[in-house]
Amino acid sequence: MAQTDEATPGSTPTPGPAPGTAGGERPRLGIGMVGYAFMGRVHSQAWRSAPAFFDLPVRPVMAALCGRSAEGTARAAEQMGWAAVETDWRELIAREDVDVVDICTPGDSHARIAIAALEAGKHVLCEKPLANTVAEAEAMADAARAAAARGVHAMVAFNYRRVPAIALAARWVAEGRLGEIRHVRAQYLQDWIVDPDFPLVWRLRRELAGSGALGDIGAHIIDTAQFITGQHLTQVSALTETFITRRPLAETSAGLSAGVGGAETGEVDVDDAALFIGRFSGGALASFEATRFATGRKNALRIEINGSAASVAFDFEAMNELWFHDHALPAEEAGFRRVLVTEPGHPYAGAWWPPGHGLGYEHTFTHEVKDFVQAIASGAAPSPSFDDGLRVQRVLAAVERSAADQSRLTAVRQT
Amino acid sequence: MAQTDEATPGSTPTPGPAPGTAGGERPRLGIGMVGYAFMGRVHSQAWRSAPAFFDLPVRPVMAALCGRSAEGTARAAEQMGWAAVETDWRELIAREDVDVVDICTPGDSHARIAIAALEAGKHVLCEKPLANTVAEAEAMADAARAAAARGVHAMVAFNYRRVPAIALAARWVAEGRLGEIRHVRAQYLQDWIVDPDFPLVWRLRRELAGSGALGDIGAHIIDTAQFITGQHLTQVSALTETFITRRPLAETSAGLSAGVGGAETGEVDVDDAALFIGRFSGGALASFEATRFATGRKNALRIEINGSAASVAFDFEAMNELWFHDHALPAEEAGFRRVLVTEPGHPYAGAWWPPGHGLGYEHTFTHEVKDFVQAIASGAAPSPSFDDGLRVQRVLAAVERSAADQSRLTAVRQT
Amino acid sequence: MAQTDEATPGSTPTPGPAPGTAGGERPRLGIGMVGYAFMGRVHSQAWRSAPAFFDLPVRPVMAALCGRSAEGTARAAEQMGWAAVETDWRELIAREDVDVVDICTPGDSHARIAIAALEAGKHVLCEKPLANTVAEAEAMADAARAAAARGVHAMVAFNYRRVPAIALAARWVAEGRLGEIRHVRAQYLQDWIVDPDFPLVWRLRRELAGSGALGDIGAHIIDTAQFITGQHLTQVSALTETFITRRPLAETSAGLSAGVGGAETGEVDVDDAALFIGRFSGGALASFEATRFATGRKNALRIEINGSAASVAFDFEAMNELWFHDHALPAEEAGFRRVLVTEPGHPYAGAWWPPGHGLGYEHTFTHEVKDFVQAIASGAAPSPSFDDGLRVQRVLAAVERSAADQSRLTAVRQT
Amino acid sequence: MAQTDEATPGSTPTPGPAPGTAGGERPRLGIGMVGYAFMGRVHSQAWRSAPAFFDLPVRPVMAALCGRSAEGTARAAEQMGWAAVETDWRELIAREDVDVVDICTPGDSHARIAIAALEAGKHVLCEKPLANTVAEAEAMADAARAAAARGVHAMVAFNYRRVPAIALAARWVAEGRLGEIRHVRAQYLQDWIVDPDFPLVWRLRRELAGSGALGDIGAHIIDTAQFITGQHLTQVSALTETFITRRPLAETSAGLSAGVGGAETGEVDVDDAALFIGRFSGGALASFEATRFATGRKNALRIEINGSAASVAFDFEAMNELWFHDHALPAEEAGFRRVLVTEPGHPYAGAWWPPGHGLGYEHTFTHEVKDFVQAIASGAAPSPSFDDGLRVQRVLAAVERSAADQSRLTAVRQT
Repeated sequence: MAQTDEATPGSTPTPGPAPGTAGGERPRLGIGMVGYAFMGRVHSQAWRSAPAFFDLPVRPVMAALCGRSAEGTARAAEQMGWAAVETDWRELIAREDVDVVDICTPGDSHARIAIAALEAGKHVLCEKPLANTVAEAEAMADAARAAAARGVHAMVAFNYRRVPAIALAARWVAEGRLGEIRHVRAQYLQDWIVDPDFPLVWRLRRELAGSGALGDIGAHIIDTAQFITGQHLTQVSALTETFITRRPLAETSAGLSAGVGGAETGEVDVDDAALFIGRFSGGALASFEATRFATGRKNALRIEINGSAASVAFDFEAMNELWFHDHALPAEEAGFRRVLVTEPGHPYAGAWWPPGHGLGYEHTFTHEVKDFVQAIASGAAPSPSFDDGLRVQRVLAAVERSAADQSRLTAVRQT
Repeated sequence: MAQTDEATPGSTPTPGPAPGTAGGERPRLGIGMVGYAFMGRVHSQAWRSAPAFFDLPVRPVMAALCGRSAEGTARAAEQMGWAAVETDWRELIAREDVDVVDICTPGDSHARIAIAALEAGKHVLCEKPLANTVAEAEAMADAARAAAARGVHAMVAFNYRRVPAIALAARWVAEGRLGEIRHVRAQYLQDWIVDPDFPLVWRLRRELAGSGALGDIGAHIIDTAQFITGQHLTQVSALTETFITRRPLAETSAGLSAGVGGAETGEVDVDDAALFIGRFSGGALASFEATRFATGRKNALRIEINGSAASVAFDFEAMNELWFHDHALPAEEAGFRRVLVTEPGHPYAGAWWPPGHGLGYEHTFTHEVKDFVQAIASGAAPSPSFDDGLRVQRVLAAVERSAADQSRLTAVRQT
Repeated sequence: MAQTDEATPGSTPTPGPAPGTAGGERPRLGIGMVGYAFMGRVHSQAWRSAPAFFDLPVRPVMAALCGRSAEGTARAAEQMGWAAVETDWRELIAREDVDVVDICTPGDSHARIAIAALEAGKHVLCEKPLANTVAEAEAMADAARAAAARGVHAMVAFNYRRVPAIALAARWVAEGRLGEIRHVRAQYLQDWIVDPDFPLVWRLRRELAGSGALGDIGAHIIDTAQFITGQHLTQVSALTETFITRRPLAETSAGLSAGVGGAETGEVDVDDAALFIGRFSGGALASFEATRFATGRKNALRIEINGSAASVAFDFEAMNELWFHDHALPAEEAGFRRVLVTEPGHPYAGAWWPPGHGLGYEHTFTHEVKDFVQAIASGAAPSPSFDDGLRVQRVLAAVERSAADQSRLTAVRQT
Repeated sequence: MAQTDEATPGSTPTPGPAPGTAGGERPRLGIGMVGYAFMGRVHSQAWRSAPAFFDLPVRPVMAALCGRSAEGTARAAEQMGWAAVETDWRELIAREDVDVVDICTPGDSHARIAIAALEAGKHVLCEKPLANTVAEAEAMADAARAAAARGVHAMVAFNYRRVPAIALAARWVAEGRLGEIRHVRAQYLQDWIVDPDFPLVWRLRRELAGSGALGDIGAHIIDTAQFITGQHLTQVSALTETFITRRPLAETSAGLSAGVGGAETGEVDVDDAALFIGRFSGGALASFEATRFATGRKNALRIEINGSAASVAFDFEAMNELWFHDHALPAEEAGFRRVLVTEPGHPYAGAWWPPGHGLGYEHTFTHEVKDFVQAIASGAAPSPSFDDGLRVQRVLAAVERSAADQSRLTAVRQT
């Protein structure tokens, strides 16, 4: 317990205000969520927490949860606090008490759910990557633009934009503190499939996941880099690799992240790692790497940006820290400094705890939900938009084209 | 988004199980909380989150919130999700829908609220330090022991025990991995009152807070060290200091952490910093320091323990990391290693996210609430008990006695 | 002062051994060095220090220093301890008291000096990069092979191989501790020319330096990576960039590193930064970056290698540390550990100080000189050979070819 | 190889200046050193290196080395470059070619050698701690003051003052950048005697070493703290401990640091660890700890100083880094920054390598020798003086008195 302002009720006689039932009168915003695995759990926590920490103009209500298995969905709904359950996403969209559809399923289903929801007049929050193909992403972005004209909004869930340290980096770039940006060095390093006996879960199957490390985690560093710099990747030269080409089949078609595979094996048809170099629209050089084979790195989303006036560096494994080098200082006292991004003046941080009391992974989603709800309530377009998601999809596509074409420098299509 | 197992509901036709309202049938456990400032906010988040992540045998219900100001309490209750409000803690205790009283007020009121609640048959979770004096703490511990005989339980909220990294350190010590412990080096460093214009908030007034850095943050490192080592401090030699002896009066008697002080000043009658050296019951040497004047350190609860077989080191500013040195390894490959305490096998961590997706400050309270609820449901004594809180109080008292007696080595009374 | 074994002479009466002049009887090895700037200074320190810390079979004698300016050379010789001076490298080679020619000049002169020296029967230690072109490097490697047949040896001065931490990493790879290597991630980051007013020193002129960051520092990470992994780069896809294309002319044609440029400007015809991705002969993926525009990074030679069984990570800015992750440990206690590479059993370290008393930049050269002298004395081929230098040169050439050919994946010629 | 200014001699025809033997005309300063173990080796490297990197007004000549064993001394002299050997320190002092006596023996002999040398008109550089008792230290300080009146100078070898990062911290304190100093937190952590089978070397025997961790490494942090802050410790409250009270006898009476002990054991009559808290003359609180039982810490001389305006933090295990927090910056961008103390404007650093090319342990001695020689040549009093050494001795004595008197707060005698 640190600085604060508790008072002791009842410690001195006070006139007795009539105790009553607490309750608010803000408009209700009904949420319907599809999928209740990893992403569903973290989105649920976000919906539950956002109203308690941010002053939202509307009151999100966790109306209904949708999953394929009635039993599993009911169990998840009870634990995570959803008021009702559905087993067909079309039914979820159709519910009158659902204003927002929150899509937490694998990428192969994003397009059809999102487009249907938008057409039904429901706001959409969709997990990333936006889709498994550029064509799907384009259709989604088209649908989102059409819906926006009717006041219905869509957002893609690149949650890392809402890490306070990353939002702070973006703020500093926007303020010109970094000067001209020369280098963007981004890595997303994990190691959860180093073991060749790890089974063929859905994330390792192109049909469901679209790609491997590239779309799952590479998409994050691409979006994060474009978000911080305010620039977009224009050219990429890429390599991809699948180190382990066959794996035991997972026990169920859905795939279990920690399950033990059986004797039968299947082909891994996605990348284990994807690397690319390239250029940004503002002239910066890019060096990117996404891999699930960086032994010892668990969730190392790293980005370093070197500008003519300053640099920033970040590693999600220490998510409350932003390293900042101010090149204007005398050389004798300059150096990368560890800014704990927990000050009241930092993005999002003021809503939480005193300085030095850090946040965790799930907070990025709480911030996302908060921004989404505020945008909807004010009629503004939430960000990142489906167009932003499409932009990332086009980089992913360019990476795959380059990798298939001897790493040739390949333009990222912008339209 | 990393490894997981989302499925796409509705992506293939499934038989339509009747959607229904989710709901559980676990017994209800009504919570009444006193105080809604910093500690109240974080406890609220804990009560809200614990059931969603841990399989609790009972269902905590946020029944009523108690604060002195009817208006402020109502506003807080609405934002934080409490169903009702009270303005007198006696009324809160008396409520039939309240089974647990959660005390989040300054230390001067802990004894009377806790004892009354226990006597009324309500379980009690009480913020730390347990009390402002040993006498109060003894009365509370007596009351807790008496209540326990009737199946009513009490716990003191030393939340840092529930940092996964700290729980892991304790586990390793208990398993004998550190060997014989020689050194415990603990610091709790903050800097929020370095500015002499920072006002005289309640934490700087002996009447309300009992002591300064000593009881507020020193208590945490004392408990943490005793918890990890399984030993207790037996002797201390101490110094305390108040660097800034007068400060502007805070705007209200309750004190506002960030308020601007006025022209009038008052005396600071608590310590700004407290240092002590001493001995543990198992023979280890202790070096402790608690200060609010460590410029640049925000919430640096640090502890390093050197044993004959291994060492551990921790800093709350990087709370997801435990540094471990295994002295049994060949010298050529030994060194402190950074264990990200986010693995499924780590304390508490498995309930949350995949490896490398860290937790934040508030999770320590969620874990605390979870352990408390599970203990109550199973009829077991929760830990840390009021006796543990008393033990810390006795160390605080010994520190103050030593500091007042030329730092003479002073025995910590054990009974 | 830490652990040691000083005795106090004279503290007790001892029989009086006749004091005499110290002196050894090892064969003399005369060193002649060309160039006395940065590299010359550090090589001098190496020649001076190696015999005091390593048990060399021969006694290096700093016979003669060669530089263009008689006055400057004489001054440098006096300060750095060279017995004589020359102003023409041909004269240096011709000296009877010179057995080794140590070449510390820019790359454009390496070939002619080295080849002449080898033909004259003098052993050669040559700074890196071996040459400015593959053709020159091939001629040098041919000359070295021919000389070796006559017992005359050549070595290229990739000093970073002799960082104890890097040598330790190579040892662990050779022992199989990393398993199958999947990723090599190497960066050499500096920032000394971020200021556009920094003058056009010789390192920024193709005619003298061959290339920019690529050959100067990129060569180091290429060699270091090939050395540690025992593999060689087979394919590269590259980008290079010159951010600042004109700079003030340096005051003298030789260029002064810290000089202030004048009003006249010249073209920068070398790269400011070079990036490439690629593949190693053993199947690992490579991600490399060399730049002089990484604001805030002073000499960050970084390499991380991820294998199926373990990973290592290194940053020269903390050169006494090697980070090691052992993937065979239980996940609950695994993590990157900071091995201080100062133990007696570590490469080179035992010759110096007790554990924890670190080494500096110049020690890498002392180790280099020691290994070189020991190889010569034993008739063995020193390593890295000119063939190793040529191998790096071929990678540099492939990088430039790829960068000029739309980053197309380009084979590194192996012969 | 990074930025520099090599030229290629002979690459263009130049007029042929007559090559000749290099040589200087500076006055000679003959050095005689007593002891050739750890300290002797590092002092030798310092004498050898200083003239090559610093512009010294005189030319140190390594005239004679003195040790008890004629054979061992001769061998050491040859390896380390001493021109002659002696086996009685009285003979060394008497040599005409010796102007400086450099004392590298255990503490029990410092007083008699130093006093004799000073009386014989020889300058003295004496290892720390100055002596084994305050009485001896007083006699030495008296002798030094008397000698100074005759132009003969003495210096105690607290080498860590010459770590560039520590000298930089002292400079910043002197400039007022830290404001009012509130906390000095210093630790010197080692682990070389954790193993109970480590033998009873001379450093573990009171008769020779005076004390244990206290005088050996505690002395260093005391001096370093007093040096940086410009204040002195006025009061201490202390604890000391000997964890392992009997150890195998070392094979020889001199003791071998790494030797294996035999079956016979002897008593350890010095402290294994010493802790104290206290106060500085300027009002700062002190928390100090010196131990050889901090498993995993090799040479962790750590100091953190918190002032009202800024803080600095240092750990010798990363000796090229000084961490600096500037409290005047906006909270949103403040944080401890890692200053690589390798810039031309940093203390000592400019004489060595470009930024980012770090120094090692031995450089602190080279800087020490450089400052000593420059002081002698200019007739100035070198620093730290024997009075500074005495001041540290008095702190050590106060620590022992306090530890023997129930840790009572004990005044450090100032005269």
